Amino acid sequence: MASEQGFTLWFTGLSGSGKTTITELVVAELQARGSAIEVLDGDVVRQHLSKGLGFSKEDRDTNIRRVAFVADLLSRNGVPVITAAISPYRELRDEARGQMDGRFIEAYVKASVEECERRDVKGLYAKARAGEIKEFTGVSDPYEPPENPEVVLETEDETPQESAQRIIAYLEERDLIPPARGS
Amino acid sequence: MASEQGFTLWFTGLSGSGKTTITELVVAELQARGSAIEVLDGDVVRQHLSKGLGFSKEDRDTNIRRVAFVADLLSRNGVPVITAAISPYRELRDEARGQMDGRFIEAYVKASVEECERRDVKGLYAKARAGEIKEFTGVSDPYEPPENPEVVLETEDETPQESAQRIIAYLEERDLIPPARGS
Repeated sequence: MASEQGFTLWFTGLSGSGKTTITELVVAELQARGSAIEVLDGDVVRQHLSKGLGFSKEDRDTNIRRVAFVADLLSRNGVPVITAAISPYRELRDEARGQMDGRFIEAYVKASVEECERRDVKGLYAKARAGEIKEFTGVSDPYEPPENPEVVLETEDETPQESAQRIIAYLEERDLIPPARGS
Repeated sequence: MASEQGFTLWFTGLSGSGKTTITELVVAELQARGSAIEVLDGDVVRQHLSKGLGFSKEDRDTNIRRVAFVADLLSRNGVPVITAAISPYRELRDEARGQMDGRFIEAYVKASVEECERRDVKGLYAKARAGEIKEFTGVSDPYEPPENPEVVLETEDETPQESAQRIIAYLEERDLIPPARGS
């Protein structure tokens, strides 16, 4: 059964900025509160909706439009959704925002390329620098930071737990999620 | 706000069998009852989720898997969904059924190729016979009828209104939709 308040929490940020880790923490907290939640993770979407698409601007745009199409379907029916794709282009994020109107919450998972490259959890930056991955966001492909995101997560200065907590606080303030159990 | 009872009403049948017409009638009745409903129409899905895919078996399968992926996301969150794609291959429909378990309702919109060709609302059969459309289901591409569908709509013997009413009756019997207003 879906919550009565649908929204799309749209994470955007470089590879390695912390989107997936923060998503997992937010999901755990929402589930603990008994809230429905669906996650459209970048990798999952590439697998289920966008197999065959590459990383050209055109293919990235198509991929993001599909994410937005599904997030819109869910959120307008009262289902909270988290999307966690790099979504590097401002225009496409703004298109998703327009589509979902007041249900769209943009959360900028902020970390510099240098920091993400230092973390390099998946070893992708090393491959990108070596030229083994073409069109890699932040290295050989652009990333356009949001201009007016609802939330900015300063992941170089706060832990993933702190970032997740700030998201939860924002959702509480907007009255979009149930209160913590026992509170 | 979503209904508490999610399900996927999966129409399958030839082009021209009546999937879209019956869908529109069912949607109108559900909306009159105040039920949420989302439609994943074959053409809409090709536009929003599957642009670039063709009509080879492989591409058809990918398309249907995407429809099932989205229908599953919605229905497991309490949102009623109607899919109205030809979905010619039994194996793929059964895969969707397995994925959605008890939430999957297969409705076979039955009409012979001869009858659909006689109707030929969109003029597609004429083009297929003329060789202008390749891989056209029922003409130059296979259609595998369901073996144990929950509902069979005999569209050569009943009107679209009667077919829609039989769907509504089935959903009522399963207690999946609100009662008619005023009843």
